[in-house]
Amino acid sequence: MVTRIATRATPDADPDWPYYRPVGRECELFELAFRHRLPLLLKGPTGCGKTRFVAHMAARLGRPLHTVACHDDLTAADLTGRHLLQGGETRWSDGPLTRAVREGGICYLDEVVEARRDVTVVIHPLTDDRRLLPLERTGEQLHAPPGFMLVVSYNPGYQHVLKNLKPSTRQRFVSIEFDFPPPAVEAEVLAAESGLSGERCAALVNLAGRLRALKGRDLDEGVSTRLLIYCATLVQAGMPIDEAAQYTLVEPLSDDPDIRAALRELIRMTFS
Amino acid sequence: MVTRIATRATPDADPDWPYYRPVGRECELFELAFRHRLPLLLKGPTGCGKTRFVAHMAARLGRPLHTVACHDDLTAADLTGRHLLQGGETRWSDGPLTRAVREGGICYLDEVVEARRDVTVVIHPLTDDRRLLPLERTGEQLHAPPGFMLVVSYNPGYQHVLKNLKPSTRQRFVSIEFDFPPPAVEAEVLAAESGLSGERCAALVNLAGRLRALKGRDLDEGVSTRLLIYCATLVQAGMPIDEAAQYTLVEPLSDDPDIRAALRELIRMTFS
Amino acid sequence: MVTRIATRATPDADPDWPYYRPVGRECELFELAFRHRLPLLLKGPTGCGKTRFVAHMAARLGRPLHTVACHDDLTAADLTGRHLLQGGETRWSDGPLTRAVREGGICYLDEVVEARRDVTVVIHPLTDDRRLLPLERTGEQLHAPPGFMLVVSYNPGYQHVLKNLKPSTRQRFVSIEFDFPPPAVEAEVLAAESGLSGERCAALVNLAGRLRALKGRDLDEGVSTRLLIYCATLVQAGMPIDEAAQYTLVEPLSDDPDIRAALRELIRMTFS
Amino acid sequence: MVTRIATRATPDADPDWPYYRPVGRECELFELAFRHRLPLLLKGPTGCGKTRFVAHMAARLGRPLHTVACHDDLTAADLTGRHLLQGGETRWSDGPLTRAVREGGICYLDEVVEARRDVTVVIHPLTDDRRLLPLERTGEQLHAPPGFMLVVSYNPGYQHVLKNLKPSTRQRFVSIEFDFPPPAVEAEVLAAESGLSGERCAALVNLAGRLRALKGRDLDEGVSTRLLIYCATLVQAGMPIDEAAQYTLVEPLSDDPDIRAALRELIRMTFS
Amino acid sequence: MVTRIATRATPDADPDWPYYRPVGRECELFELAFRHRLPLLLKGPTGCGKTRFVAHMAARLGRPLHTVACHDDLTAADLTGRHLLQGGETRWSDGPLTRAVREGGICYLDEVVEARRDVTVVIHPLTDDRRLLPLERTGEQLHAPPGFMLVVSYNPGYQHVLKNLKPSTRQRFVSIEFDFPPPAVEAEVLAAESGLSGERCAALVNLAGRLRALKGRDLDEGVSTRLLIYCATLVQAGMPIDEAAQYTLVEPLSDDPDIRAALRELIRMTFS
Amino acid sequence: MVTRIATRATPDADPDWPYYRPVGRECELFELAFRHRLPLLLKGPTGCGKTRFVAHMAARLGRPLHTVACHDDLTAADLTGRHLLQGGETRWSDGPLTRAVREGGICYLDEVVEARRDVTVVIHPLTDDRRLLPLERTGEQLHAPPGFMLVVSYNPGYQHVLKNLKPSTRQRFVSIEFDFPPPAVEAEVLAAESGLSGERCAALVNLAGRLRALKGRDLDEGVSTRLLIYCATLVQAGMPIDEAAQYTLVEPLSDDPDIRAALRELIRMTFS
Repeated sequence: MVTRIATRATPDADPDWPYYRPVGRECELFELAFRHRLPLLLKGPTGCGKTRFVAHMAARLGRPLHTVACHDDLTAADLTGRHLLQGGETRWSDGPLTRAVREGGICYLDEVVEARRDVTVVIHPLTDDRRLLPLERTGEQLHAPPGFMLVVSYNPGYQHVLKNLKPSTRQRFVSIEFDFPPPAVEAEVLAAESGLSGERCAALVNLAGRLRALKGRDLDEGVSTRLLIYCATLVQAGMPIDEAAQYTLVEPLSDDPDIRAALRELIRMTFS
Repeated sequence: MVTRIATRATPDADPDWPYYRPVGRECELFELAFRHRLPLLLKGPTGCGKTRFVAHMAARLGRPLHTVACHDDLTAADLTGRHLLQGGETRWSDGPLTRAVREGGICYLDEVVEARRDVTVVIHPLTDDRRLLPLERTGEQLHAPPGFMLVVSYNPGYQHVLKNLKPSTRQRFVSIEFDFPPPAVEAEVLAAESGLSGERCAALVNLAGRLRALKGRDLDEGVSTRLLIYCATLVQAGMPIDEAAQYTLVEPLSDDPDIRAALRELIRMTFS
Repeated sequence: MVTRIATRATPDADPDWPYYRPVGRECELFELAFRHRLPLLLKGPTGCGKTRFVAHMAARLGRPLHTVACHDDLTAADLTGRHLLQGGETRWSDGPLTRAVREGGICYLDEVVEARRDVTVVIHPLTDDRRLLPLERTGEQLHAPPGFMLVVSYNPGYQHVLKNLKPSTRQRFVSIEFDFPPPAVEAEVLAAESGLSGERCAALVNLAGRLRALKGRDLDEGVSTRLLIYCATLVQAGMPIDEAAQYTLVEPLSDDPDIRAALRELIRMTFS
Repeated sequence: MVTRIATRATPDADPDWPYYRPVGRECELFELAFRHRLPLLLKGPTGCGKTRFVAHMAARLGRPLHTVACHDDLTAADLTGRHLLQGGETRWSDGPLTRAVREGGICYLDEVVEARRDVTVVIHPLTDDRRLLPLERTGEQLHAPPGFMLVVSYNPGYQHVLKNLKPSTRQRFVSIEFDFPPPAVEAEVLAAESGLSGERCAALVNLAGRLRALKGRDLDEGVSTRLLIYCATLVQAGMPIDEAAQYTLVEPLSDDPDIRAALRELIRMTFS
Repeated sequence: MVTRIATRATPDADPDWPYYRPVGRECELFELAFRHRLPLLLKGPTGCGKTRFVAHMAARLGRPLHTVACHDDLTAADLTGRHLLQGGETRWSDGPLTRAVREGGICYLDEVVEARRDVTVVIHPLTDDRRLLPLERTGEQLHAPPGFMLVVSYNPGYQHVLKNLKPSTRQRFVSIEFDFPPPAVEAEVLAAESGLSGERCAALVNLAGRLRALKGRDLDEGVSTRLLIYCATLVQAGMPIDEAAQYTLVEPLSDDPDIRAALRELIRMTFS
Repeated sequence: MVTRIATRATPDADPDWPYYRPVGRECELFELAFRHRLPLLLKGPTGCGKTRFVAHMAARLGRPLHTVACHDDLTAADLTGRHLLQGGETRWSDGPLTRAVREGGICYLDEVVEARRDVTVVIHPLTDDRRLLPLERTGEQLHAPPGFMLVVSYNPGYQHVLKNLKPSTRQRFVSIEFDFPPPAVEAEVLAAESGLSGERCAALVNLAGRLRALKGRDLDEGVSTRLLIYCATLVQAGMPIDEAAQYTLVEPLSDDPDIRAALRELIRMTFS
């Protein structure tokens, strides 16, 4: 059942795919996991491109994608489906995970650690060699076709005592760590998304590096690539850079007056 | 897709719009975010005019507005909708967020940090480039039209350990801080809302400044512009200023006898 | 929209109104708030006459009254209404708040701080200039008519960390503090309610003063006017005063043997 | 409305009434409260005869009795009633409190402090001069007839931080403290209930006094009159007194080996 | 109503009864409680024969038996019954307690302290002289016939702050403590249940005594008679005694490596 | 009822059975417990082969298998079944435990300690000599046929104060501890599952031993056999061993930068 595959078997980038700029060999790993039917775990900070990466790979592999942002109250039924009353009749309605299994698509559970614990009952038989989705409510046992893949993500920066992935769940996934792209790549991303000149994008990325250095001391999270794109967008629309940075790089990061003053000072130093 | 727009493209103030007196460039930012389809986060203390600002901008941009005051028990279904039994039949009933998406209107989630966590599953795909609202229950996937905008607010003064916006949510919003207006502007607002003379309004605003200086020491929150309007209204209706201040600026702020005595003393000193 | 009104525009007391003996200018404030459509917050200890005051004012202003005793499990739906199954059909049933809005009546939420947090979503749009009650379930948006007024109360003596009114809610109300009436007034109330002679009522009020002086040291709450009326009623029915006081002024106040002994001693000293 | 009544207006004891041996003037107080429509609170330890007292008074006053043992999950709907599905139809079913109000009977809420907080919304309007039971679900407002009386009890020995009667509820009740009967009376009760000779009953009561003296030091609660009756019943059926005491006075009081050894020693000393 | 009965009124042991080997006078007490309609509480460690004892007595007294293993989520409705939807119709379904009351059988609530608190509302009126089971949902009030008896058990070793029997519940039961049988009796039980020779059973009981001596120091619970029977069964089926003891007396008792090593050492010393 | 059986009564391994490589006498114990109708508890770390062992034994004994991954919200009804609405009709739907009892199959509750407490009410009567499954909802009492067996597992490494198996549940199971296989056996398993050469598999197992030595100091759980198989699979597909180890042996084990650096160092030392 193990197939030896070339490391770049997928076709070249297609302009219709969602834009994604690879940093390392993450595309190769994703494809290898897909071909060997291994589930994949993406670890990394918020806004660094995990969701876009999965969208890109789904397009590249030609699989439909179902994305679910997990939260404290997400239950197994939210993923598998439930009976709904409709016009006096009850009708079974597949959840996103079930749809992915039926179609042979990719199901991406973003921040899976936030979901309620009954989600494990659904994930476990899908992530070992059984690749099985039991639907108690309909009496079905769905066998995942080769095209199905489960991808989950979480942000190690959030981990705390009450909420983490149990080892018995975690050790079911091939795992890869994401981080913000290296400066040249991130500037390339900014320019592509906002239309701003490469030079100004490089200046913003330079600023981002300084801001991210504060993480763990003054900031819980460094500035995300997403916020840099917001900033570049406002600047490109004509807003002065210090004002745009105030709205996109200072206010979203902290409510503490001292920290915000320090951020503003850092911004002024960078652009003066 | 990025459009270069003039900073004052909107028409001049229209008398039918809800009254709002801008303090800085908040109207320009709102409009820019609206045109570039970026979600907006308003931070600021209670009663400083955030709700009115959003109502004003909705009118100015000609978009319908749906406002929801969030709370501990607000769930995603309260925003998206649910099936209701009616006359023996079940009928889907859109929630305020879904209505805003369908109409291309503005949805304003006041004190969003209070809502339950499953709200994130709804907010996330609406606040990135997907601008998508998946309605599991009806099987629909609504793509937000250009007229849709999500605005949320919270009060940094309330933030505590158990309740705050996760960075992965927070870094999805362009953000701006609100505060009480500068004295001259606040007096102008009081006069417009209560009909009281400008001179007496200025005196009330002067008092407000002294009361707000106590925040963080004796008071959790400074006196709001709203309470000043209540006070001006009672005075304009013939009530002596110290009695009106007792009912609107002392009792609503504290239950502590010593603090209230200090507030009363401050008021007497101001008006004697 | 601000109307200048005389401070005593209401007619003189009518014998059909629930009996209420004003202590200060609380009736004038209530009426002014009613005329200017401002919501009102009553603060004060248990059993000092807040509920009776609201009943009196509702009669005086000729408005129907809906009173709700709030508690830990009271939800917004308990106030606004819900669909009920009846004879195989679902029928919408207005809650007390919705009835008050439809009729233009007064809704009084007693000890509002005890209610669950989703009550805020209903109170907020009713307590600013929108005066709006959105009924998600029926799809209605009710605009409160001029006759509608929201009155809430709470007891500052109960306030604790987990349960208090958020500033963003609290700063929406004109507020007034209640306390037990001055001795002469309280004796007048006792006599009117129990039929006991003025002299004996004065003696009971004198005792109440001594008992209330223990509040904060030995007692959480002072003795209420209501309990004094109970005591006067039992005495008027022929029970010896020390036995009546035991049942109405000692046992209801404390379970601590030492404190009760002290209370009994105080009572014996007062009446021997 | 206050009626001056003789202190012993009720007829003499009737053999059909549940047996109750008064200790003080509790029957007179109950009757006076009933005639003046005042609610009553009984305080006292477990198994001292509160439930029997209420049953006795209900028979004496010729009123039907509805007793509810309150607990952590008892809600207002458990007392007022709910719609039940029956044969495809929904039918309103009165709860015990509603039945008592409709019939003009006595409703006894045993250990009321254990009930959930929404019970207060029902108790409050029934315990002031309104004497009103609002049934939101059926749209009824029941006015309690003169025959209705609300009696509640609780055990001050259980009181703890999270569970107690709020002053605003507690100060609505005329209150009386119960305790175990004086020795001669308790022996009389034992003999009447078990058929055991007066002398042996007196010996058991003497033992009970010694066991109760341990309360607060080694025991949370003293031995109840009920357990003494169990003991007398087993002895009267032929069981040796030390064996009967082991099963009824030692094992039910404690699981601690040392305390039980001490209790056994006390029993042997009493009966040897 | 008190009947003087002989202490051994029941017939001799019947081979069809579930096997139970009495240790003391527990059968006499059970029967006496049954004849006098007193509820019974069994205290004792896990696996010492409480459940079997009740099954034996039910057979001996010729009463049907309903056993319920209580747990954190067991509610009163689980005991009394509920309306179930069946074929479009709702049908009342008696719970095990209600069935026992209707039939005049024995209801045994195992580990009653684990049940939710609303169970008390059902137990209380059944455990005093009323012997009443009110079924709010069907409107019935069932009077327990003479054949009905309520038996409850709990394990004092589990007692902790949050979960214990309230004195007001506990003092309603005649109580008896159970422990593991004396060695000769326990060996007799092992032989009867497993078929293993008396000598080898005696050796196992000897081992059990040593293991139980560790309770409170290294072990939370001593080894139960049940586990000894498992061990004897495996040995009788041909498994070496040290291997059988590993699976039945070591692994089920502890996960701590040091404690398990000590247990294994103790076993080797016993059998070498 | 006790049958003396040979220790290897089952047929030799059948190529259609799920692959399982025995380490000790666990197959004999399983079969003995099955023949004597004793329930079995498997203790051991995640990913060491417990699930596969049960699947293997079910095939070997010719019994159908129902596996349930337990979690915080798993209730008794999830195991026994519930009424489902379907096409306007309610239909009883057996849960996996009930299906196993009806068919005489094996029910495997993986990580049973995670399930909610009402599961005990179902497990207890199935795990003593009654072997009974009461279905309150349908009124059935199912007697388990000889082919039924209950197997549960848990991971002692997870045990914490709030979640563990009560002794009264735990002492109902014959128990066996699992651990990772000895090196030679584990290498054999890797080769069989991934197709990688025996020599390279032995190197991976050697590495696993070093990583597992860190458990309890730097790692909560050692690397599982499952992750080693993932690693071997990626290597066999052409990925360099250090890259494959990064994705399967480093990232799934820890988020701590220092620990991961140490793991990477260990890997490099092993393979250079």
